[in-house]
Amino acid sequence: MRTLDEHRTLVEEHIGRLPFAGELAGLAEAMRYALQGGGKRIRPVLCLATGEAAGAEPAELLPAAAAVELVHTFSLVHDDLPALDDDALRRGRASAHVEYGEAVAILAGDALLAQALDLALAYGRSEVARELTQATLGMLGGQYLDVTDGTVELAQLHALKTGRLFSAAVGSALWVAEVPERDQEPWRAFAADFGLLFQIVDDLLDDDGIVHEHGEAAARALSDETEESARAKLAEIPADTARLDELVSGLSMRARAS
Amino acid sequence: MRTLDEHRTLVEEHIGRLPFAGELAGLAEAMRYALQGGGKRIRPVLCLATGEAAGAEPAELLPAAAAVELVHTFSLVHDDLPALDDDALRRGRASAHVEYGEAVAILAGDALLAQALDLALAYGRSEVARELTQATLGMLGGQYLDVTDGTVELAQLHALKTGRLFSAAVGSALWVAEVPERDQEPWRAFAADFGLLFQIVDDLLDDDGIVHEHGEAAARALSDETEESARAKLAEIPADTARLDELVSGLSMRARAS
Repeated sequence: MRTLDEHRTLVEEHIGRLPFAGELAGLAEAMRYALQGGGKRIRPVLCLATGEAAGAEPAELLPAAAAVELVHTFSLVHDDLPALDDDALRRGRASAHVEYGEAVAILAGDALLAQALDLALAYGRSEVARELTQATLGMLGGQYLDVTDGTVELAQLHALKTGRLFSAAVGSALWVAEVPERDQEPWRAFAADFGLLFQIVDDLLDDDGIVHEHGEAAARALSDETEESARAKLAEIPADTARLDELVSGLSMRARAS
Repeated sequence: MRTLDEHRTLVEEHIGRLPFAGELAGLAEAMRYALQGGGKRIRPVLCLATGEAAGAEPAELLPAAAAVELVHTFSLVHDDLPALDDDALRRGRASAHVEYGEAVAILAGDALLAQALDLALAYGRSEVARELTQATLGMLGGQYLDVTDGTVELAQLHALKTGRLFSAAVGSALWVAEVPERDQEPWRAFAADFGLLFQIVDDLLDDDGIVHEHGEAAARALSDETEESARAKLAEIPADTARLDELVSGLSMRARAS
């Protein structure tokens, strides 16, 4: 079983080498720029760690893992646009629309989504791609609520905007590993907890969201409770989930250091 | 064999009844607004006419046909944005970003693309969806050239921005009708001619593009030549392609009336 660092390296190399459709021409440069922002790659690593625990090889999982990261990057590029969150910076660098202009950023986001689904379709079965289309629709519904509805509940927003793609990272790995649908439930329950924990930790680090709404003490209590729940879900999975446990630890350590 | 008008009615009804993902909430309204702009539905009709000629039933073809129209609508919504073509009108109505604001229009375009692919994935086989992802990547590459490169050849732009989706309308129908890949070539050659003819006619009607570049006489000559070539391709197809022939006639009559 590979370490999480090995998973991260595999993901980074695979994404760096992705052959984009030739017709994209110069648009591929803007896509690569957005992809190479140096995030932690937590979604594709979660995909690899899940799939390996479920018996698949990293080489089989990498297209799905990369597709998840492309969908994530698509959402960042469009969310950063002036008409949406209007963020000029993304991970310390100029965001795509500042670097390439709004027109190219819109097209690059579109192309990241289309390329992600094209990657996912390289699996003969349609389930991997379907995890991504469904997650994308949920994310867009969440972003729509965020943009238009001041009264929407934070938990609902988080579940859509963040949770859905974590679920797809796990779900796509399960299909690649050919885990029968009837056996997927505990993995998916873990994914839901993991996505929630990620968001709580993010809010603790940014002093935002849940912290802003319920106070730091309540956010920390919810973080501890969600961590415990995630580990309980892992205990129900009949496989070696040591790496998934480490991913949970990594998140909760970030929360404690904040 | 149904008439083209019957095909058009089936498409219109099917698109009007499409169940969008529930999580899209209010975003679905903007998507429906863009979809109900009252175009001629030529791409989904081409999909139905092709598939029926190849032996499939309209009920089997309608999800693919609708998916093609959703991809087309996604591209219109994003192309109309201020950062791209900045069109305030689309078929005589306010374009999506004027009606709903830029943020919602960006998200609605994204959601139309994701929903299109989700629809296409309802077919167990991945080929239908793959026709659409590949066409979308080609279209985006074309739009990128259009936005950034003043020297690009018009024929190349047209092939990407228009031709690729016509090819996908035909290609997806062939997969639904289970035409083996080795027998698809004449159909696909027809699709390439049909897409080109559509674009020439469009340029003749708008006094634009090819007419602007080569003059009206040359454009009319190219239109006649392409019409003849399209019909020659149909003659090579071992099936009753009467409806496809009628679609060609419909285009060339529009050209003559211009």
